[in-house]
Parts: sequence; C-alpha cells; structure tokens
Amino acid sequence: MPTPAKAYAAQSATTPLAPFSFERRDPGAKDVAIDILFCGVCHSDLHTARAEWEGTLFPCVPGHEIVGRVTAVGSDVTKFKVGDIAGVGCMVDSCGHCASCNDGEEQYCEGTGFVGTYNGPDPVLGGHTFGGYSDHIVVDEGFVLKVGHDEKDLAAVAPLLCAGITTYSPLKHWKVGPGQKVGIVGLGGLGHMGVKIAAAMGAEVYVFSTSPNKRDDARRLGAKELIVSKDADQMAEHANSFDFILNTVAASHDLDQFLGLLKRDGTMTLVGVPETPHPSPSVGNLVFRRRALAGSLIGGIAETQEMLDFCQAHGLTADIEMIDMQDIETAYDRMQKSDVKYRFVIDMASLKN
Amino acid sequence: MPTPAKAYAAQSATTPLAPFSFERRDPGAKDVAIDILFCGVCHSDLHTARAEWEGTLFPCVPGHEIVGRVTAVGSDVTKFKVGDIAGVGCMVDSCGHCASCNDGEEQYCEGTGFVGTYNGPDPVLGGHTFGGYSDHIVVDEGFVLKVGHDEKDLAAVAPLLCAGITTYSPLKHWKVGPGQKVGIVGLGGLGHMGVKIAAAMGAEVYVFSTSPNKRDDARRLGAKELIVSKDADQMAEHANSFDFILNTVAASHDLDQFLGLLKRDGTMTLVGVPETPHPSPSVGNLVFRRRALAGSLIGGIAETQEMLDFCQAHGLTADIEMIDMQDIETAYDRMQKSDVKYRFVIDMASLKN
Repeated sequence: MPTPAKAYAAQSATTPLAPFSFERRDPGAKDVAIDILFCGVCHSDLHTARAEWEGTLFPCVPGHEIVGRVTAVGSDVTKFKVGDIAGVGCMVDSCGHCASCNDGEEQYCEGTGFVGTYNGPDPVLGGHTFGGYSDHIVVDEGFVLKVGHDEKDLAAVAPLLCAGITTYSPLKHWKVGPGQKVGIVGLGGLGHMGVKIAAAMGAEVYVFSTSPNKRDDARRLGAKELIVSKDADQMAEHANSFDFILNTVAASHDLDQFLGLLKRDGTMTLVGVPETPHPSPSVGNLVFRRRALAGSLIGGIAETQEMLDFCQAHGLTADIEMIDMQDIETAYDRMQKSDVKYRFVIDMASLKN
Repeated sequence: MPTPAKAYAAQSATTPLAPFSFERRDPGAKDVAIDILFCGVCHSDLHTARAEWEGTLFPCVPGHEIVGRVTAVGSDVTKFKVGDIAGVGCMVDSCGHCASCNDGEEQYCEGTGFVGTYNGPDPVLGGHTFGGYSDHIVVDEGFVLKVGHDEKDLAAVAPLLCAGITTYSPLKHWKVGPGQKVGIVGLGGLGHMGVKIAAAMGAEVYVFSTSPNKRDDARRLGAKELIVSKDADQMAEHANSFDFILNTVAASHDLDQFLGLLKRDGTMTLVGVPETPHPSPSVGNLVFRRRALAGSLIGGIAETQEMLDFCQAHGLTADIEMIDMQDIETAYDRMQKSDVKYRFVIDMASLKN
C-alpha cells in the first residue's frame, strides 16, 4: 500500500515549484525507505523543472543529491538497517544484466538505460520517478549508498552524490595522482569538488576560470593556482604541460584553448553537455600531440560508494549554502548567475514549515 | 664536400614537378648514404608541392616513403653496412633530448620539432630538406630503418614508411588485438594498410566506405565486411559495438555517425587533418558512453622499425601501382580522384630515363 509523500514540484515549465503530494511505494523485499534530511540543488534540476532539456514529465519533483535516515528495510535487505544514514544519487535502477551493469557502470546501462532518480520511468508504480525535493524516498538497496561522514556534515555530503561522483569518476578513470598536473575548467558546483578531489588524489591542481576574483577560493579549495582563461599570456605559459583536464563548463566555449595545454597523450574530459555545440575542436591539436577529447557521465554505484568513502577518509565535503524548500526559485535564479558558493542544499525539515 | 643529387622538384605551387639538381651532404660520422630504389607517393607530397598547406619552401622535392640500398656509412655507424636495404620515413632528425624524444616518440618532438624528410630545416647544410623523389639521400642512422622484406617486395614496402606506421601506431597505442571489433574509415592508401595491420593484429575488422564497390577489396585485404557509411540502416546495426575506430579520412565529414558506433570506453582516432573543420562532434555522444575522440601522428622511429618487422613477419606490404618519375603529375591527378589501388610508388630507376 503506497504511502503519501510531501514534496515540491513544478507543474509546468513556466510555473514555480510549489507544494505537491503524491505516493511512494511501500518498501518491497529489496527496498530501503529513507526520510530525506538534505537534498542538493543541481543545475539538472533547474534544466528539467523548466523543461530546458527535452522530455520533462510533469509534475516534476527534482533532486538527486539525497542524504537521509533509513526508516524501514525490506526482508531481503542486507546492507542497511533502520537508523542508518544513507545516500541516493542520480540513479535508482538499471537493467542489471547488460555489459555496463555487469561491469558496475550502471550509468552507461545499455539495456533499459538507467532509471533517473527523477523524471525516469518508475519501474514499480508506473508513471515517472519523483526526486529528492520530498520528505522520503523508497529505493532498491542496490542503488542506496552508505554515508559514513559525521552527522554534523550531512548537508555538505549531499552534493557528493552528483557533483562529487561526476568529478571523482573521470579523475579516477584517467588515473589522476601524484606527480600529475591537472586542470579543472570552471569553479562551480562540479568544479569546486573537482579541485578538492584531484588535490586529495595528490595531483597539482590548477583552476581555469574567466574570473580572477576566484583566485583565493581556488587556493583555499586546494588548487596551486588559478589561471585566467581569458589571459592569453597566462594560458601560453602552460602550453603542453597538463596531464589531464576536467572540463566542467557546459556552456558552449572554445575547447582548443584547453586542448593546447595538454601534454602529449593528455586527455580533456567533458562532463557537461552544451545546449548549442562547442566550436569544432582543432583536429591538429589532437593529432600533433596524440591528445584525446572525451566525455564522462556521473559514475557507477560501486564507484559512488568508493567516492563517498574517499571523501570521508580525506575529510571532504562540498562548500554549501543551506536553503529552505520555499526558497528554491530564488536559488535557481541565483544559480543561473553562478551566484552560489558552491552548492545550494535544501534542509528538508523546512518542508514542514 | 657535398655530392650532386638528381631529383624531381616543384619550383612553385603552380608549376609541374620537373627535373632538378641539388647537393646532398657527404655522410658524416653518424650518417648513412642510401641510393633510393623506390619512393611511395603520399597525399602530403601533393599538398606540399602544390602549396595547399601553409609553409611550402621551393624548390620542393617531396617523398617520405623511401626504400633504398646503403652505399656508404660514417665511421660511427653501427647498425648499417654498405649493401644493406634501408628505409627512411617522414622524419630525418629531431632534438633528441625532449620528453618525447627520450620516450622514442620523435614525431611529437617538443624541442625543435621533428625535421621532415622534405620541407624541414636542414640541420647540416642549412636551407630546407629535400625528400625521396631523388636518386639518393643521406640520413643520420638514428632515423634509418632496417628493411628485412624479400628484395622482390621492396617497392611495396616503401608505403609502409608513412601509410604503414601512421596506421600501425594508433592501432598499437590503443591496444587493438584479438576479440576486438575495429573499424577503419576510408579505404585509401592509409585505410588499406589499416585493414591489413588490424587484421594481422587479430581484430575483427570492418571498413567504412561511401562506396559499396570496394566490398570485395575490403574482404580481400582482411576485413570481415564493408559497411556503407551512407546507409543509415546498415550503420544502425552496428551502434555501440566497436572497440576502436581508426579514421583515415581527412576531408571534413560527420564524426558523430562513427562515434555513435563505439562501445562504452571506445576511442575513434583521427590521422588526417581536414582543411576545413569537421562539424563539431556531439558532446552527448562522448559523455553518455565515456567515448573519446583522439588524434595520432605517424609513429616514432623504434615503433616504425617494430612495424616493419611486424609486416615482414606477417607478409604484409602495400597494394601498389608502380609509376615512372615522369608520370608524377598524372599520379597526383588520379590520387586526387582516389583513383589508385592503393598507393603509387615511383621506380626511382626511371630518374635516369
């Protein structure tokens, strides 16, 4: 018997998010029910709620950076018990038997595709999934993460479930570590986690930003230096010197200015998909140094757990601004102006206000 | 005391190649002097002679797929003796002490850059280097290759020095081997060597071509099948299935149709630089399967030797049409229409006609 849930939802692309009631399934044998304590605010939430991407299903309850407390577990659940702190990220299901699922890379599921935490096809109740801007959620334990951080840090842990894994996964996949010079393009929600994680992995980290004002922050977060990407002389000093560049900027921009800074055999990995294409990258820039331009999507569940454990071991959380649920539209507007350091997190207790 | 050399040269971008005399250096202590038997005809020769790329220095003697017989060696030369069959490819020198040179990747030399076999700065005589459309050449032994093929095959070995290594190097670098599905885009001078080498490495090879007429040839060269790249249905059958695609087509074209055929973690490597940019590749195509788009340039000297030895061991040479030096302009015109199977090679004995 489904249980009622309270949430904030957009009813259309042009209406603000507002209180919304719906039903969650009761936990099945493999399910974990979680009271949501905190939910991070990702750019994807805004794009989806405002239907800036194709395919938004309304009503839309965004939110895929979820931390909460387990309130019930199904009879077959082995990894969680009532009272545990748990996390849920961008996925709540996948086909479970394709090559990518078998490899623990559920984000690339080639069967059904992964089921998004919101705006995905609900595999149990039908209809579409509702995300973390809600009081509770019920998820298959295979898609629930253990959170070991101190309870006082839980709000700042929430953004790890998307911004953390989206940056950790490519840094790990391309083997970032000590002795390497690594660039992070863009210092926003993703970029600031990229800096912290790459530095914790032992790399020498540089931030590329159009804004010299972020220099102090870049250093505080663990970067050796901020390079102003609009300053051609500063950029030229770093030609052919980077082992890896993680590019977190989704807006259309010139990729060549960064590709030219990679060493031979270096890779620049994009984690944002632009609405209008980037200018076509120079093939010569790739050929004459055997460079690569790649892409990466969040990370698998096992890797997300590894990332949470890594962050806990290194004392890493996101830099956040806490908001009430009622302030979400203001937060969206500020986020569009990059006016947040560096992630909004909703205190879900405010839903009761 | 320099020795006179006979050659064919372009005196300007608009004059046909014609007989030309100049001087080669006498072999220094580390030099090998080679009487040129055969020289392959590469698209780069045409682009340079007709100044279709920037920076052609005239008079221009093209040719960087050279096979010949050693006629003299300097006092410090240890790897060659008079009478040996030797090859020279795209490079005749490099700085020798940068990171890439130290790694045996002279083609990516970050010091002076590598010295091209033609149109490069001549490090000994000054002026610029003259290539293989000539009766002899003098090269530092560090840039001379041993050719172990049967003497009857030497004409067909010449194209290995550029077309062979340009395809072998990326296939090796991206670890092509048994159990892999590999695509070769374009069936020309480079592509036909790519098919032979990838098949010899044990991969299941598919040729992408706009021309279904090449099907029989593709199979004969070692491909399992030819896929007509204009046929959307045929292409769709192979979605998400390739481990690696080697793209030999330099003309501007849609990269996404091939990127979409790569598996998760697959790479497409470009070895041709287009005159006008390719349409910008879809970032989504990269992100949603963690695919990479890369480039590769010829190969290092040690790897070129490895490629020659590999081709000898597997009985591989190029498919060629032999021409006289006097027929070079006709060959260029045919090459521009892709009317060659699959590489012209100049019989340098014809220089004496």
